This record gives sequence, structure tokens and C-alpha cells, in this order.
Amino acid sequence: MQKKELVIGLDFGSDSVRALLARCEDGAELATSVYEYPRWKAGLGCDALRQQFRQHPLDYLEGIEHTVNAVLENQDRSLVAGIGVDTTGSTVAAVDAHGVPLAMHPGFEEDPNAMFILWKDHTALTESLELTAAAHKADPDYTSYEGGIYSSEWFWSKLLYTLRKSPAAVRKAASWMECCDWITGNLAGCTDVRAFPRGRCAAGHKAMFHPDWNGLPPETFLAGVDPLLGGWREKLYDKTRTADQAVGTLGAEWAEKLGLSRQVVIAGGAIDCHAGAVGVAIRPGELVKVVGTSTCDLMVAPTLKKKIPGICGQVDGSIRPDMTGLEAGQSAFGDIYAWLKRLLEWNGSGVNLSDLEKEATKVPPGANGILTLDWFNGRRSPDANEKLTGLICGLHLGSTAPMLFRSLIESTAFGSRAIMERFVREGIPFESVTAVGGIAQKSPLVMQLLADILNRPIRVAKSAQICALGAAMYAAAAAKVYPDLLTAMEKMNSGIDAVYTPDSVRAETYNAVYRKYAEMGILYEKAVMKEPSV
Amino acid sequence: MQKKELVIGLDFGSDSVRALLARCEDGAELATSVYEYPRWKAGLGCDALRQQFRQHPLDYLEGIEHTVNAVLENQDRSLVAGIGVDTTGSTVAAVDAHGVPLAMHPGFEEDPNAMFILWKDHTALTESLELTAAAHKADPDYTSYEGGIYSSEWFWSKLLYTLRKSPAAVRKAASWMECCDWITGNLAGCTDVRAFPRGRCAAGHKAMFHPDWNGLPPETFLAGVDPLLGGWREKLYDKTRTADQAVGTLGAEWAEKLGLSRQVVIAGGAIDCHAGAVGVAIRPGELVKVVGTSTCDLMVAPTLKKKIPGICGQVDGSIRPDMTGLEAGQSAFGDIYAWLKRLLEWNGSGVNLSDLEKEATKVPPGANGILTLDWFNGRRSPDANEKLTGLICGLHLGSTAPMLFRSLIESTAFGSRAIMERFVREGIPFESVTAVGGIAQKSPLVMQLLADILNRPIRVAKSAQICALGAAMYAAAAAKVYPDLLTAMEKMNSGIDAVYTPDSVRAETYNAVYRKYAEMGILYEKAVMKEPSV
Repeated sequence: MQKKELVIGLDFGSDSVRALLARCEDGAELATSVYEYPRWKAGLGCDALRQQFRQHPLDYLEGIEHTVNAVLENQDRSLVAGIGVDTTGSTVAAVDAHGVPLAMHPGFEEDPNAMFILWKDHTALTESLELTAAAHKADPDYTSYEGGIYSSEWFWSKLLYTLRKSPAAVRKAASWMECCDWITGNLAGCTDVRAFPRGRCAAGHKAMFHPDWNGLPPETFLAGVDPLLGGWREKLYDKTRTADQAVGTLGAEWAEKLGLSRQVVIAGGAIDCHAGAVGVAIRPGELVKVVGTSTCDLMVAPTLKKKIPGICGQVDGSIRPDMTGLEAGQSAFGDIYAWLKRLLEWNGSGVNLSDLEKEATKVPPGANGILTLDWFNGRRSPDANEKLTGLICGLHLGSTAPMLFRSLIESTAFGSRAIMERFVREGIPFESVTAVGGIAQKSPLVMQLLADILNRPIRVAKSAQICALGAAMYAAAAAKVYPDLLTAMEKMNSGIDAVYTPDSVRAETYNAVYRKYAEMGILYEKAVMKEPSV
Repeated sequence: MQKKELVIGLDFGSDSVRALLARCEDGAELATSVYEYPRWKAGLGCDALRQQFRQHPLDYLEGIEHTVNAVLENQDRSLVAGIGVDTTGSTVAAVDAHGVPLAMHPGFEEDPNAMFILWKDHTALTESLELTAAAHKADPDYTSYEGGIYSSEWFWSKLLYTLRKSPAAVRKAASWMECCDWITGNLAGCTDVRAFPRGRCAAGHKAMFHPDWNGLPPETFLAGVDPLLGGWREKLYDKTRTADQAVGTLGAEWAEKLGLSRQVVIAGGAIDCHAGAVGVAIRPGELVKVVGTSTCDLMVAPTLKKKIPGICGQVDGSIRPDMTGLEAGQSAFGDIYAWLKRLLEWNGSGVNLSDLEKEATKVPPGANGILTLDWFNGRRSPDANEKLTGLICGLHLGSTAPMLFRSLIESTAFGSRAIMERFVREGIPFESVTAVGGIAQKSPLVMQLLADILNRPIRVAKSAQICALGAAMYAAAAAKVYPDLLTAMEKMNSGIDAVYTPDSVRAETYNAVYRKYAEMGILYEKAVMKEPSV
């Protein structure tokens, strides 16, 4: 390894793309740059009331040019060895034979169904229920490596919904692509749709791709769900690759735009949180919890034969090439706190969540009897159920905003515990949590309650750009700066900022409150499911 | 009747006493005066965290002097024919042999157990459970005319709690007295505890007084609950009177203080909401809903043999002397809206509920899926359960303050409907509602939703001092200005301000939402009752 080699991690989040320039030697974060998607910010293609969230591919492309040039300013560009990419997912778009998203075709610039359908778009709820029902009837059950419930946020739901809703041109697209695959292929100068790489993470976790059935689910199954899904399987892919593998080198056009050599290696695309788990050097027994508006919870285990029900999936090689990657998640976490903030700001004046947290710290465990079910955005894991909603009970006339905030925090930690209990029940060792993201760094109360409620130490990662750092590690491995990803993880991870240790007295109290949470959850889910379907 | 005769209604509320000077001829409200209790305002004897609420008798006496003199300023005092009194209840105090509350004895001025124990004081929860259990084992069940559940807010619970907690002096009190009885006796110059009148309302609704068992429950029952209750029955009373009957004329001391003749007739004391029902000339088929922080719901029916379960009581002559008075209530109504206001004001800036109501009016019926159980202060009727708490479900990340407010309003109307359905189930005709109080006059949305959810017209009373007006009517009857209360009600009632008519489309929608409310209520009550008792 040359001492001074550099890699770039590109992290495409929900609102912006961040570029990180990292030193391979020690993972030092030399420069970062953030670009907020302008079309997204203007609401193009979105309809929040319908939970329709779309993004335009030009937001991504412009973001690359802007941020990469920004982090390379005053740097020796010849030292850049590789670029790694992570994106949200399942975030998918219809593409033409050259791999160009249809929204980049004249006349389709503003067609929501020609854009990328963002992970959190829930328009395909009906389709997800149909796919789940059909998979449960099939043998094998194609959802069995994805937790048993196929989400509206995932590939086939979105494909089917869009085929049903959109004009003929979209129906005749050459293929469909995950955002991370499209970005990496685009950087590598791919112009043939069949040349675009397909990443293991998105394929396995979002598209029911598994070796047991030779890749994507068979044509008979897909066409059986709806004839509109017929014929797509062969337009997609039959191979996937792990993100530590090079997909090629930088294309000519990008080399010019970015002032980089065409020798720069492009690593395989990954889903953002998977890159984040790599960024904190995930190991067996440790849950990496990427805590933001929602959470993505990741574990790895030596290659796993057993199928874990109720999580978002288990894919060999999806986080680290040497293990089975396990993904779960909470569909709302910080979003629940933000909900309270918005509520309290109804009168137009600002509320500082840190002030509220200070007061909530003084509220005793159990929030003076207030108990919250954290399903404000449905439930992702364990046992996905998008029909569920939030519930707050135990309210009395003396219930205050800090008590409510404490209860909301407790509820998000209870949601985390429900996921932990599923892993534990299924025999996956669960020793500690590494928490990643803004809330982990900024909210000691949230982290302490998480430690108390899980009764496990919570380690907070030092880096604030852990996903981009993971992408940079993929790049260092793909470019062979290091012999493999494990070595890159070991050398480049930036370590732990703080460790929260459970308090045994509070942990005991919370055991009892958690049982109430679990019991109330069972009651409430039954009540919700008895209601007529939406 | 002399054309110019006047009567005074004195209405002792939770925070203040109001005097109303009314013209007998037509009920015209000539003058009002309000006096806020200074010791109460300073928190004397109160501990809100324990729901301990006490009031000092001097607050009441000073209030009489202040407000009566105020309304009589520039009036011909010789025209005053009578004074009627209503107070909160069950609001009780220990008294000496002269009928003087112990808090007026030197050394007891600041002893909470020597003061009046305000209706909403919940310190006697344990005692109420013991009394209920014992009554259910007894034959007859002494709670059977009080809805079957004996409240911590009522006479015997408070007596037993205080006997257990207080010093010997209080245990040796000569008697205990309801506030309305103490005030009327005091005005009439009573100096012997046995001469104080005992009102039918408080005795029947709060102290299990009924002719079926010859008055108060028998000594064996009371001493069986706790020997501390032994011996009290004979120190109390064995007769009650309806509020339209004179208890005497103004005592010498008061005549002097108020500048009134000693011929002024003092009517019997009533509980405030009962006076309110009289103030709007209650008739069979009509529920008079006194809407404030909580509600008191009153009906009358031709003398009723059947026992109605789950209400707060049925007493012959308790509202009108010619009928059975029925009382129910919601333990929180406006208090729930005030709770949201306080919550939204956490950041220190003001929230105007009228502004919030304007926005809530635009939210569709069903509050975008939010459903609230209105038990923030327990449930009074039907089927009292003080362990219950508030619940809000159907919450999602887009739930806003106006949606929440709409749901809270809907929940209080659903609570009203649950009471209506009990009356209807038990065969009591239920044709319309007359709503009384500030919320009725100020909140069109609350009234309209009440109409839609009950599917009954809601009439809003014109007078803002309906309880004081009812007390004035009692006075007019007691002083024989009119031959009886019914004539006084007919001549002096001030009529209706507005009528809210149910919208048939919304009523249909709300039928479905109410079923969800009822089902969720059953589930939640089961869950709460499974928890270990407080």
C-alpha cells in the first residue's frame, strides 16, 4: 500500500449526497461535502399525503460532480485509488437499453413513475400484500430469506405498482435498477443495461434473489402474481456481486468531470446502512444500529442455514463477503421525536429537543405511567406490519411534554428490544450495540435508555459519516489498497466515542414496563387487524 | 307575586363563588359578582400530585359577604325575598356541635383534614374500593341507587379516609356535613349541628341515603367496613329535604352583614349541577349537560322504580321535587382540551384553543384515523372506574395538533354517547341535550360534533350563570314568590341561545367510529385491570 493513497466514499441519503475523502492508511476523514437534492427539495414527483416519494436521477448526478470536486479541492487527485458508493434502497427506477432512467428521456422529466421510487415510498402497499400472499402459497416461500413479509418498500412491489399505474413507455422499459447499481455502473461508464453491476445487498434483501431458487423468483411465480410482471425476470439479472469487488474503473466522461484518472476503481454498490455497518467494523454478536429518522439494524453471523422469521432479510455476503448479513429495522425512530417537536411547535414558536430531553431526564422510568407503541410509521421488524399506527396510553391530566417525550424515547427503545428478542430467540448471539448517526451522538438520554432497556452496552461510533466511510472501505478493498475488506475495516475504522452501560436498577424496572409494551402491542395489533383493510 | 321581587342565587364552584341577583318576574339577571377563593388560590391544604384538594370554610364565608353586597349595590334590598344556594359536592367537612367546621378552630386552620374535602379530591380511592366491595356483598346492595360503584369522590369514602388519617380531634367531630348544607344552615343562623338542614341531592347521590333502608346505610354495614365508621350514622341525619323547601330565614349576623331583612327566606341547598338543570327548566327526555372541566349529566324521569346501573345515582326529588333525578358525568371534558393546550404551550408561548378549533374544523370526521379514549381523569359514567387513563391511537407521523384536537373533541363526545346509550338501554327516553357552561357557548365545533355523535339536537342555554339561576329559582319557590318550583322554572328560565342539529352524513360516519371507540375501550379496560392495583 502506498502510504498516501486516498479513497472516496459516496453516500446517497434520503435528502442529500455526501462525499467523504478518506486516507487509506488510517481512515482519516480528510474532507467531506454535502449536496442537497434540489428537485427533491422542491417536491418534484412527491405527494406526501399518499406517501409517494420520488427522486430524479439528475439530483444524484449533479451531486456527484459537486461533492467529489469539493472534497478534492487542494488535494492531489492522482492519489485517489477508488470510489465506493452506497445509496438508500430499495430505491428503484425503470431504465432504457443503455441503463438510462426514463426520467432522463424528453417528455418524462416530470413523470413520477419514470423517476427513482425512494425506499420510503409506500404507494405499493396493495402490491406488497399480494406478493406476500402469493409467496406464502408458493413452495418454496420466496419471502423466507426476507423475514416472511414482503414490504411495499421493496423492488417487486414498486415494479408491479408502477407497471399498473404508468404509461406504455414505462411498461416497455429495458430493465429496472436499484439506485446503488445505477450509480456505480454510471460511474464506471456502462452504456449497456446488461453491463450494469447488480449488488448483493439490494438483490438479496429487497428482490427475493437467492441461490436456493437460482436467483430471482421464477417467471411462473411472478407472472402468477400478475401477468404484468411476466417477462421481467429475464430483463433483470441472474448474478450479483458483493460490494468489496470492483465493478470497473472510472468512465471517460466522469474522469473528465472529476479530474480523476480513468484508473480509479469503482467498487460495487451497497445499501447505505450496510456500508455503515462496515464503517464501524461490524463483527458477530454486535448489532449495528443506524439511528436516524428510522433505524436500520444490522448483524452478521457465520454463514447461516436457519431462516430467521420477521426480519428484513438474511443474505450471504450482503454486509461482509465472509458472513451472512442480517437486516432488521424500525420504521420510525428519530421521526417520532420530530413528530413531537412538530406537534409542540404548532403555535409557530420553536422547540428545542435538547431542552425537552433535559426535562425528560428527570422523569422516572416508565414515564409516570405513559406507555407508547412506536408504530407511528407502521412496524418494520420484527414481523412487518404497515397497517399499524402509534398508540399512547396511560395519559392523565398531569401528563406533560417531558413525560410524553420520555415515553416516546422508551417506546423506540422497546421497539429495539423487540428486534433484539427476535434475534436472541432465534439463537443469534447478541452482546452489544454500536449506535451510529446523529441521534446516537447528540442524545445521551436516548442512548442511556437504550442501554437500560436492552440491558446491553451501547457503543457510539465516533465518525459522523459512517456510511460514507464504509463505502470508502469497500473502495479500498476493491482497489486492492488492502488485500480484503476485513483488513480495510480493521485499519480504517474510526472507533468508538462513548459507551453507555446499563443501570441494573433501571434495567429491572424496564423489564416490567417492556412486558406491558409487549402485551399492549399484541392487543392493539389484534384490534387494528380486525378493522376493514385500507 | 309582587312585580319587583328579587332573589339571590349563590353558586359555589370549584374556584370561586358567584352571586346572581335575579328578578322573579322573568328571571332577568340584574347583577352578578364573582369572588375567587384566596386560600384555595394559594394552594392551602392541597397536594395536586396526590389529588388532594381541600378548601377552607372562610373562603366561602368571605365570598358570601363580598358577592352578595356587590350584587345589591344600588338595589332596593327590601325587595329581596330569598336566597338559594348550590355548591360542589360531595364536598364535606367535619363539624363541631355548633356546626362549625373544625378548620375554624384554633390550631386546625391549616390542617387539610379539618377543611372541606373538595369533590375532586381522590385521596380516598382505597376506601371507595372497600365500600364498593362491602356494599356488593350486602343485601340490599347500598350502591344500587348510586349506579353500583361507590366513588372516592363521595361522602363515606372521604369520611373513612379522613378518620384513618387524621388526629383524634377530627375523629371526635360532632358530625360531618356537605358544603351545601353547611352554607344554607349557616345563612339561616343555625348554631346546633342537629338543626342544619340536609339536602336530598347530596344525601341520595353521595351518601347512599335511601328510603328503602330507612335513610343512611345501617350501623352494622358501616362498622363492618371499618370499626372507625361505627357510631357515625346517628351523628349524621335521618331526614332530607328537597331544595325548593325553605330551611329558615336569614340569621341575625348575616342580616347585618348583608344589609338584608331577617325575613329573607333561605332555600334548601343543592348540588351545583342539579341547580343548573333547574336553571334550564329540565324536563323528561332531555339531558342537561353541564360542561366544564368535567361534565355533570342530569335527567329527570317520572318516579322511577327500576335501578339504573353504572350512573352516579337516582334520587327521588333530587333535581325537581316531582321526579326522580338521575345523575351521570364525565370525569374530564374541557380538562382534556386544557391538557392539550398545556402540552402545546410547553415552550412557554401561548396557544389559543379557538385558533386550534378553527383548524380542527377542517379535519374530516374520524380525525384522520386518530382515536382517543377520554379517560384522562378516570371514567365516571357509565360504570365508574378511576384506574382508567387516557389513550390515543391511530397516530402517524403526519398527525398534527388540529387532528389531535379533533380526536380529543370526538372522544369527549363519544364519552357522552356512552352515557346516552346507557340511559337508552335502560329505557329512559333521550330526545335532546341542553348544554350549559362556557364550552357550550364558546365552542361551536364541540357542540356540532356532540350533535353529530349523539345524533340528537343540542340546545345551548342562553344564561352563562345557569347554576346560580337555578339556585335563585329554588329561592323563589322556597320564598313562595311562586307557588312551586315548576312555575318558577317556567317563568324565570332564560331560554336557548342556539340549537345544533346533527348532520346525517357525519352521524353515519360517527356511528362507525363510535363502535371502534367502544371496542378499543373494552380492550384497554381489560389491559388496565390486569395490571397490579395501585
